[in-house]
Amino acid sequence: MVDVASIASGVNTVWVLIVTFLIFFMQPGFALLEAGQVRAKNAGNVVMKNMMDWALGVLVYFLVGAGIASVAAMLTSGQALSFASAFSYISSSGSWVSWLFGAVFAMTAATIVSGAVAERIKFSAYVFMAICLTAIIYPVIQGFAWSGGLLAGSGFLGQIIGAGYEDFAGATVVHMLGGIAGLVAAYMVGPRRGRFDSEGNPRPIPGHSVVFAVIGTLILAFGWYGFNVGTQASVLTANVDAGTLTFNGGALGRVALNTTLAMGIGAVGSTIVTTMQEGKPDPLFAANGLLAGLVAITGACAHVTWWGALIIGLVGGVQTPIVYRWVVESLKIDDVCGVFAVHGSAGAIGTILIPVFAASGYANFGSQLAMQIAGVIVIAIWTIVTTAIALKIADGIWGLRVEEHEEEIGLDRGEHGIEAYPEFVDEGVVTDGGERNQARTDGGEHEVRTDGGEVMDTTEIRTDGGRDVEEQERELRTDGGEDDSEIKLVMAYIRPDRLGEVKKSLAEVGAPSLTVTNVSGRGSQPSTTEQWRGEEYVVDLHQKVKIECVVADIPAADVADAIREGAKTGEPGDGKVFIIDVEEALQIRTGKTGPEAV
Amino acid sequence: MVDVASIASGVNTVWVLIVTFLIFFMQPGFALLEAGQVRAKNAGNVVMKNMMDWALGVLVYFLVGAGIASVAAMLTSGQALSFASAFSYISSSGSWVSWLFGAVFAMTAATIVSGAVAERIKFSAYVFMAICLTAIIYPVIQGFAWSGGLLAGSGFLGQIIGAGYEDFAGATVVHMLGGIAGLVAAYMVGPRRGRFDSEGNPRPIPGHSVVFAVIGTLILAFGWYGFNVGTQASVLTANVDAGTLTFNGGALGRVALNTTLAMGIGAVGSTIVTTMQEGKPDPLFAANGLLAGLVAITGACAHVTWWGALIIGLVGGVQTPIVYRWVVESLKIDDVCGVFAVHGSAGAIGTILIPVFAASGYANFGSQLAMQIAGVIVIAIWTIVTTAIALKIADGIWGLRVEEHEEEIGLDRGEHGIEAYPEFVDEGVVTDGGERNQARTDGGEHEVRTDGGEVMDTTEIRTDGGRDVEEQERELRTDGGEDDSEIKLVMAYIRPDRLGEVKKSLAEVGAPSLTVTNVSGRGSQPSTTEQWRGEEYVVDLHQKVKIECVVADIPAADVADAIREGAKTGEPGDGKVFIIDVEEALQIRTGKTGPEAV
Amino acid sequence: MVDVASIASGVNTVWVLIVTFLIFFMQPGFALLEAGQVRAKNAGNVVMKNMMDWALGVLVYFLVGAGIASVAAMLTSGQALSFASAFSYISSSGSWVSWLFGAVFAMTAATIVSGAVAERIKFSAYVFMAICLTAIIYPVIQGFAWSGGLLAGSGFLGQIIGAGYEDFAGATVVHMLGGIAGLVAAYMVGPRRGRFDSEGNPRPIPGHSVVFAVIGTLILAFGWYGFNVGTQASVLTANVDAGTLTFNGGALGRVALNTTLAMGIGAVGSTIVTTMQEGKPDPLFAANGLLAGLVAITGACAHVTWWGALIIGLVGGVQTPIVYRWVVESLKIDDVCGVFAVHGSAGAIGTILIPVFAASGYANFGSQLAMQIAGVIVIAIWTIVTTAIALKIADGIWGLRVEEHEEEIGLDRGEHGIEAYPEFVDEGVVTDGGERNQARTDGGEHEVRTDGGEVMDTTEIRTDGGRDVEEQERELRTDGGEDDSEIKLVMAYIRPDRLGEVKKSLAEVGAPSLTVTNVSGRGSQPSTTEQWRGEEYVVDLHQKVKIECVVADIPAADVADAIREGAKTGEPGDGKVFIIDVEEALQIRTGKTGPEAV
Repeated sequence: MVDVASIASGVNTVWVLIVTFLIFFMQPGFALLEAGQVRAKNAGNVVMKNMMDWALGVLVYFLVGAGIASVAAMLTSGQALSFASAFSYISSSGSWVSWLFGAVFAMTAATIVSGAVAERIKFSAYVFMAICLTAIIYPVIQGFAWSGGLLAGSGFLGQIIGAGYEDFAGATVVHMLGGIAGLVAAYMVGPRRGRFDSEGNPRPIPGHSVVFAVIGTLILAFGWYGFNVGTQASVLTANVDAGTLTFNGGALGRVALNTTLAMGIGAVGSTIVTTMQEGKPDPLFAANGLLAGLVAITGACAHVTWWGALIIGLVGGVQTPIVYRWVVESLKIDDVCGVFAVHGSAGAIGTILIPVFAASGYANFGSQLAMQIAGVIVIAIWTIVTTAIALKIADGIWGLRVEEHEEEIGLDRGEHGIEAYPEFVDEGVVTDGGERNQARTDGGEHEVRTDGGEVMDTTEIRTDGGRDVEEQERELRTDGGEDDSEIKLVMAYIRPDRLGEVKKSLAEVGAPSLTVTNVSGRGSQPSTTEQWRGEEYVVDLHQKVKIECVVADIPAADVADAIREGAKTGEPGDGKVFIIDVEEALQIRTGKTGPEAV
Repeated sequence: MVDVASIASGVNTVWVLIVTFLIFFMQPGFALLEAGQVRAKNAGNVVMKNMMDWALGVLVYFLVGAGIASVAAMLTSGQALSFASAFSYISSSGSWVSWLFGAVFAMTAATIVSGAVAERIKFSAYVFMAICLTAIIYPVIQGFAWSGGLLAGSGFLGQIIGAGYEDFAGATVVHMLGGIAGLVAAYMVGPRRGRFDSEGNPRPIPGHSVVFAVIGTLILAFGWYGFNVGTQASVLTANVDAGTLTFNGGALGRVALNTTLAMGIGAVGSTIVTTMQEGKPDPLFAANGLLAGLVAITGACAHVTWWGALIIGLVGGVQTPIVYRWVVESLKIDDVCGVFAVHGSAGAIGTILIPVFAASGYANFGSQLAMQIAGVIVIAIWTIVTTAIALKIADGIWGLRVEEHEEEIGLDRGEHGIEAYPEFVDEGVVTDGGERNQARTDGGEHEVRTDGGEVMDTTEIRTDGGRDVEEQERELRTDGGEDDSEIKLVMAYIRPDRLGEVKKSLAEVGAPSLTVTNVSGRGSQPSTTEQWRGEEYVVDLHQKVKIECVVADIPAADVADAIREGAKTGEPGDGKVFIIDVEEALQIRTGKTGPEAV
Repeated sequence: MVDVASIASGVNTVWVLIVTFLIFFMQPGFALLEAGQVRAKNAGNVVMKNMMDWALGVLVYFLVGAGIASVAAMLTSGQALSFASAFSYISSSGSWVSWLFGAVFAMTAATIVSGAVAERIKFSAYVFMAICLTAIIYPVIQGFAWSGGLLAGSGFLGQIIGAGYEDFAGATVVHMLGGIAGLVAAYMVGPRRGRFDSEGNPRPIPGHSVVFAVIGTLILAFGWYGFNVGTQASVLTANVDAGTLTFNGGALGRVALNTTLAMGIGAVGSTIVTTMQEGKPDPLFAANGLLAGLVAITGACAHVTWWGALIIGLVGGVQTPIVYRWVVESLKIDDVCGVFAVHGSAGAIGTILIPVFAASGYANFGSQLAMQIAGVIVIAIWTIVTTAIALKIADGIWGLRVEEHEEEIGLDRGEHGIEAYPEFVDEGVVTDGGERNQARTDGGEHEVRTDGGEVMDTTEIRTDGGRDVEEQERELRTDGGEDDSEIKLVMAYIRPDRLGEVKKSLAEVGAPSLTVTNVSGRGSQPSTTEQWRGEEYVVDLHQKVKIECVVADIPAADVADAIREGAKTGEPGDGKVFIIDVEEALQIRTGKTGPEAV
């Protein structure tokens, strides 16, 4: 007699192992997605955090987390508490495939947080948070929802409400948990420098690679097929007594189809909303919407009709830009990668909607809907409270946030002593120059040039009186020669992060036209040391920004003073300003020459 | 009694689902491959197109496309027409796995087109094209070839010729269709600005990342194992009546081996050809050859011997650079990613050659060969006609092509209001400087400096007569001081895209030596607004190119005029030219000083 | 009666095919990992090498390698030698899946070498090496260890020692072999220019993308699940006589768990070591440690306990930075990607430790330990000897190493006529500037400015005596006007690779402060031709570095001479120096003006 159990185990285990590998592959997906959304100076830190939450988290989840899940279930369902039973998987090779399948879900929850707190959280605090998530915060919810604990039909709450919580592949257990933990952490760590201006208006900080973000998204979608379809872990069900096997093709097909439709319409929905709002389809929000569609359907994919999946995915996609904006504009929380909108709210909505679109219906629709809502609330409260406690502890031990200077130079150098792209170093110019909603008003030169026309008087910034002959020559130049003495090139080397201030002070002094070049320089500022694979090297050329203003109507000394005012921090490395005589000028468009051309 | 059908279904479904996921993973492969082959300013648009053709296409293929395939088959094979039957999959969960398996093939065909029309097609027109491809153009051919339609043995044409069309995994049904649609679209949209010079000679426009292109290629090869080997979807065949199972290991092995050998020799063949042609092995053509080897064997892999696979793969690889060049040089079509050479011609050749290298032979070789040729012709004609119609419609509604200015600033900003790499913005310098086959002739300075030696006369560009004292000083400078008064630094800030013209006009005026720096500047040009996740920010520093020419023999004013001539567009933002006195010059190699050093 | 053999074959073949695809996917993982660790100018070469070792290697392994493995086994185990039998797989479709499974292991061994010799090996020599590896070097060891040859229980050495060599998935057969071959090749090719200074002290050469390196690492980890867990190729074992099937779930679980734990603790262990050594956690070493943990467990994963896996993975990770440093500092070998530390030593240690942590124990612990050590020695010696011979042959035919100039401009241009990132070209500044262990001593300006304060005398570099009037004006300027005549801007355009020397000579002359800008320039240097997909384009703008020094106390002519001294190579393209008068200077931090500000 053929052993149907062996056949089913063989087929199901091949399936489960491979989907487990696919879910693991979401790790580089998250790493790329997040790396693309931060500035280049923090990209190494982002991928390091992603590597370490996996590497450390999987050890913690083996030694502690998976057992805690069972303990949590036992404690909240009236089962007898047995640590021996809860941790029996550690010595049982037959349960290791299942353990690994569980581990990749736990690690997904942990890694989501990373995207919310990027660009300013201390590495030590982040690692501690990842340990808490994989040891306790996620496992308890896993136990509540999936191991017969609090929220299950047999759990205390499930018994009270009369229904078990439905979340097929973890829209809330994994994703909402990660998304809410990220939101709480982003709130506690505080926004990045410059994310909100002094009036509290948000100022965008563009990430360094939209391509990375989109490729990361598509890698995640690939892994998500493992996540969702793989949760239908039984391809064949064996009835050992009858010696029969049942093929669960319909269940697999439903999950696969619903997952596909929801991700498609999530991307489309988000794109339509942003096109209406912004006038143009936004690739990053399209990617976010695709993921939000996936999150929304993750809990529902096995339960709902195909058109239900379309609606759930659409809602997931459409709410993404709206919720993201609400987090930024109303909550004033700097959730860098939008993890709450993508993983948090999308997961909650999709999971609550399960009974509404259920393919087979529920015996008691009202109880089921109540249970869905109750489950979402329980998971949210647990996550908020435990995340807050974990971060309070981390704050007390290490502090949550890197110092201002470190945030400025980037966490790659500050936390890791490296640069992610040592050969591509063009920071500061575009991203520091933006001010929201002031488009097209501060660029026109005639609007601001109100104080022009004065005769240049460079003596204002001179402290050492010039000799007679010098004065004589100067007089010759500035008074005698109209077309050449009046035009001056003011050239300054400043800190990249002072560019915004310098632009402001230049505009105030009536000299808004400038040219900016990324340069490297060494002056009185001390060298710094960086590492490549542990070997140190000196970086004695610091990133600087060179500013060139050619002025005719405004005294060059005023311009130099204005630059100084904007550029000064008082630390070595503030830079210098030089004034050079320009013989002639020519405006290309008009052909004007002399001072008029400037 | 064990149900052999369940066992076979279980094993086969695990296999089919996983290969389906692998084929889906070709989407980021295509996205990276194409992104790497375009300039940075269009990279976000490329990945957005790839995301949207999947997201939207999969919805269209579920609601329309898959049913159209059956309808097309019914109409061209004498089967009864039944829409109910054709669209029955929509409500049958048992057919959803198969539907998804079909969908990833359809989406591959759609996404191929993207690479041909990159960097200038309107996003709206592209999306419309993707909808047509997944709703009608591809499904009809799928129905003709794979669902018993026109080209099948039971189809009208198959009955006439007496053989069914063989294309195992879609070398023509998927790839050639995509490649030809791309070629037609590239022709109709027209070449990118600057792809051909005024005499019609092609000028290359290098893409921004060879690494992306190669990694994308290897991701595609990974997915292709799913594409080809997965098309051998039956691992176990159940005979329910006899209660037996047949393991199709040989068939799987043949497809896997042939796919591997053809991709290997495709890359090698293409590399050998380009090494012979160019003197150096070309990574991009090696990648293209690898893919062309895969395309060529895609239809044949289940049918031919291993040495037949080697020959087919070799032909696929070798023809890639040759056909690509023919498309560019003879057809004058700007197929950016070479999709016709890689997917089109390679697919046609490989599929026609199937009977020649068949492992088991065909009952009637002549009929089979005729059918292969007929099939290729039918698919080609259908694709050309329908693609042309679809694009004509799109042209009428939205226009096919972005405006010249948008193409110049990049589709990322024009179509999406974003920049893919806000911190890495070095456009314009290398790619605008190239002119084909003129190497080493326009670089030598003595060849062009024929008008040197004149005394500088900057008054030519002066419109405001200088005063006496000024004249006096000027005289002193330009006449009195030979080695220092004669040397001038002409410094200009111009539009990046005018660099090529400026270089020409500088060479004409006898001042070909120049230094170019990428800078950002703000002057009279209005600010623009960009977005990051929907939040706007002002970009008031525009990309400019700074030009520095130091001249001694040629009047600086002539040089300034030459720059103006090349740089002028008449729009605000054309830039300015300044002339600065240089005290001394030193040539490093020779040690010469003064005017001679310049 | 159901055919249990068919069921087992079906399930096992699905499993084996998919893990084979995963192992193939390690190719882009290696490509990204290595590309990230080299400079941008060699990135295209790296990915080309990775593509070609797969493409060519797989052909060689089919036609030659796999047969050689059997021959090697026959010759070293007393089996009858039969070429017909050894090469029978070529014509047997039933063995092609197994062949492909073997091929992806062979190709992994070959591709490891690439990382050690990056940035200077000739492409031709590398391709020859890859052929030797896939034709002979690897296959012989495969035959020795896995096909019943020398090291197996039935092999000559195994019989003598009384135990068969254990290396489950190739920690030594694949990885140590690749790692040692890489080390030997790196030694024979010699270190990259600048990797060691004239005293033999190592100087780091940072790679161009830490993000690529980490993403490549995570792709490799994904593929590694295929590599290790897939080597447990039998999911179901059929007993045809009894008609029974055995499910090997425990064996699969052990391999999966041990692989996971070892990679996690490998990353953690390496991170702890580097944090202790360098004070900061290093992302690249974390990635290396993760891989080393995987390598260490690769041979042992099926044999050892879970805590044994933790210890082996920890040892693998911890030894990585230590062994890497030893290779660099003691052996003075420039193993670019650290392949010996990651693949070589980690593989050896992990495999030798198998008996120590064996889950089931060995009948004769001593014999097994002896066999493990003997096996490692045999594989090491074979690899060293054959690699050396292969490279000697390559050296004789083509030479091993590219010319100095080619290394300087990058192998992308030298070997392939391309640029990997034509729009992102910022080479030379950071990476050429570093000198190890000299931090913070050469940056301070007062330390080196010992000869300042002299009156400028630009006549030193003048060869053509100035006229009277010029002298007169000069006198006016340099003697009469203190605060403006004394300040000079010395501006030079030089070769990027001379920057380090120029910095030295500037410091010697007492003018260490400088500003560096990446520019493109054209002067007397001839244009070069590059290719994009075989179409040539002229690059007449060469990468240059612009240096700006503003000096007051030091004669500008001395500074110009110093720049010349550092920048001179005697070839066209050395650049020029210009001196420009600066009217005024202002130090931003202090507000000082005039010469004091400089």
